[in-house]
Amino acid sequence: MPGYRGLALKALLDAGAEIGDLIRIIKDDVIFEGILIPRSEYSDDRHIVIKNRSGYNIGVEVTPSTRIERIGAEMKPAFIPPPPPKQRPGLPRVSILSTGGTIASRVDYRTGAVRPVISASDLYSIVPELADIAVIDAEILFSVFSEDLTPKHWSAMAEAVARHITRGVDGVIIAHGTDTMGYSAAALSFALQNLPVPVVLVGAQRSEDRPSSDAPLNLIGAVLAASRAPFAEVTVAMHETPSDDSIILHRGTKVRKCHTSRRDAFKTVNAKPLARVIGDRIIMLTNEYRPRDTGRRLVLRANFDERATLIKFYPGMNPKIIDWYVSEGYRGIVLEGTGLGHVRRECFPAIKRAIESGVIVGMTSQCIWGRINMNVYSNGRDLLAMGVIPLGDMLAETALVKMMWCLAQSTDPEEVKRLLLTNLAGEISERTVEPIEAPRIFSPSKEAD
Amino acid sequence: MPGYRGLALKALLDAGAEIGDLIRIIKDDVIFEGILIPRSEYSDDRHIVIKNRSGYNIGVEVTPSTRIERIGAEMKPAFIPPPPPKQRPGLPRVSILSTGGTIASRVDYRTGAVRPVISASDLYSIVPELADIAVIDAEILFSVFSEDLTPKHWSAMAEAVARHITRGVDGVIIAHGTDTMGYSAAALSFALQNLPVPVVLVGAQRSEDRPSSDAPLNLIGAVLAASRAPFAEVTVAMHETPSDDSIILHRGTKVRKCHTSRRDAFKTVNAKPLARVIGDRIIMLTNEYRPRDTGRRLVLRANFDERATLIKFYPGMNPKIIDWYVSEGYRGIVLEGTGLGHVRRECFPAIKRAIESGVIVGMTSQCIWGRINMNVYSNGRDLLAMGVIPLGDMLAETALVKMMWCLAQSTDPEEVKRLLLTNLAGEISERTVEPIEAPRIFSPSKEAD
Repeated sequence: MPGYRGLALKALLDAGAEIGDLIRIIKDDVIFEGILIPRSEYSDDRHIVIKNRSGYNIGVEVTPSTRIERIGAEMKPAFIPPPPPKQRPGLPRVSILSTGGTIASRVDYRTGAVRPVISASDLYSIVPELADIAVIDAEILFSVFSEDLTPKHWSAMAEAVARHITRGVDGVIIAHGTDTMGYSAAALSFALQNLPVPVVLVGAQRSEDRPSSDAPLNLIGAVLAASRAPFAEVTVAMHETPSDDSIILHRGTKVRKCHTSRRDAFKTVNAKPLARVIGDRIIMLTNEYRPRDTGRRLVLRANFDERATLIKFYPGMNPKIIDWYVSEGYRGIVLEGTGLGHVRRECFPAIKRAIESGVIVGMTSQCIWGRINMNVYSNGRDLLAMGVIPLGDMLAETALVKMMWCLAQSTDPEEVKRLLLTNLAGEISERTVEPIEAPRIFSPSKEAD
Repeated sequence: MPGYRGLALKALLDAGAEIGDLIRIIKDDVIFEGILIPRSEYSDDRHIVIKNRSGYNIGVEVTPSTRIERIGAEMKPAFIPPPPPKQRPGLPRVSILSTGGTIASRVDYRTGAVRPVISASDLYSIVPELADIAVIDAEILFSVFSEDLTPKHWSAMAEAVARHITRGVDGVIIAHGTDTMGYSAAALSFALQNLPVPVVLVGAQRSEDRPSSDAPLNLIGAVLAASRAPFAEVTVAMHETPSDDSIILHRGTKVRKCHTSRRDAFKTVNAKPLARVIGDRIIMLTNEYRPRDTGRRLVLRANFDERATLIKFYPGMNPKIIDWYVSEGYRGIVLEGTGLGHVRRECFPAIKRAIESGVIVGMTSQCIWGRINMNVYSNGRDLLAMGVIPLGDMLAETALVKMMWCLAQSTDPEEVKRLLLTNLAGEISERTVEPIEAPRIFSPSKEAD
């Protein structure tokens, strides 16, 4: 009974329940039913965790009056894939590299472990439509929640993509947890230069064993894009709306997760998305992209320097935090300032000290939408005069990733600054006057929760 | 010639130009025209700053070949308000407290200083329509850019509002810079309990001396709300769209600045806005509000403990930053995690150490939209088991402000936790299934820049 202790363990033992069993917990007038799942080493001794019918895990507090009934042995069989459809050798070739996350995993209810499901035949079994689009080669890179990924994983992903591209595939897909998929997409956009074919990151907000899962359609969109899209860029493929109507292909440097749970959580910020997938059609939404060209030679620049940090400013922020990062040997700081790119004047001396000691300091905005303009107000002008670098309309997250990447490309501060201010992968938009159809922001709804 | 040195100063002296003069800078084939404005002590010796016809400040680099011509003495007179309209004593009484920022200021082109313009007669002169809505009393609290405000200023604002409410006004307005207006609105929502009348924060994205200024309409909306709205809550009054059609009244705990420059930069997140103002009508958008009741007795809880911080998590974040805050004597940490409320496992030991030493650690999401749910994945469950407090659908910025406020209310950690998890001012929404009209997210457009 991993993770169970004390009162919770006793109640389970009394009921004769084991991990994977369907159990009923009766607390006063409330009844909970679900599959008993294991807990971790950090758990308390008062909660029992079950996976309910909707696929969510619920922690129920046990009191001396709580009763537990074992309803049955594990109701849900362990995952046994049906036989996969036949591959069609004439179709485009696509590689799927999995890194973990909801899209690439299934929970094993007996052990509670999340197990990667990413052999090609597993994929064809889950989403048989894929066999009509491409011949898929699958590889497990790692199997971790995306919040556990670090810049070292970005390097490993970039190297793996390069390896598969060298084999001559028509596109590469990376199955990824959604939490940090935006950061990884930005990282690959800088690490994979001069791409000949598309690289598509894809995730899921609802796991594949839930009826409302977005995994199949996201995968279909990703495979269509990887095998047939006219562009050779790093993109993210996710639902455009809460319904299963369309998939949007976001440029890797301009996308962020803007909702904790909705299927349309990912939004392109300060730009147009690259394309929309409806059915089996890819509809381009912009003419500005690098065209697919299998003759082009990929340039791999997979290193990132982790001695860069993102500091989100807030009223009352302690300027000593800047000095601390400098004392720890950090080489780059991305400030997430307010409005057009401001922090309070009491931070100026610390910023000045950081810059004088050779640290590169860049400015982004916590507004998320819009563009840094440090010429409007005197606080901004003074920061510019100190040498703070205005990072245009770059997302703060992308700016951090780019800082880590630039610092790994050169030890010359002037070259790092030049790279930061150069649009390398669509991360800095030119000012545009072209209005486009506005996607909708999130509003309270059933799905929002 | 404040702030000018070296090459820039020489070029200006050669041209006989003085601060406030209209000058022309000729650089190769490019000509810049504008009013010469002063620079700060941090400035370099190579740039001249002018305010161009559109009201923006531009820095132009001077090279030995740059020519400067003085076209004329200051073209724009210093601000001399026209005579104000007569006050009408029968109208509601409203106080306007100014804290600085674009809305309450005018640039003096002779000195470059930003000077507060907030006497009642100044206001009536700039926006004469106000005289038809209310009798206004105006007070300058401070005159600072809002990024320079700290929790001490929040306390001073709350105390000033209480003072004016005690005098029996029908509503209080706070003119505020937009950069941190969301933080201040949250702070006042907690500090001013049991409000009898509305408190409306109002700002402007374009200064009053620019043709496209949003200041007049925002002020009219704020004065209408303060004098006549049926609710007694802390709200933010700003443009609903880029056009001058309507003002939205956002609840103070649910609003954030989501665009650097657009007039409709402020958005209500994870809730419905309170009301819309069109013309002189206030249209309620929800039934859930505290009604205006001048018989109610305000409870002032104006203290904030600055020993709380906001840490935005990112891939590769150094867990030692958490230990540093603990060693500096911080009492509260709000994590801005990924997705449903995650940080990487390598941060767990530091978080555990923080909690064991008595620091309150809360979790919010950098997604901005949506709700924390730490029961879905094992990383979340482990953080819960350690004692990390899931902060529901609270904005990270509001959660930080609330943490500072809660820590000032009690030294008992259990009481602080109880307060954090209690919905005090609309900061935690109940789960809702009611769909509402979705406001539009920002798209590239002329105004977006």
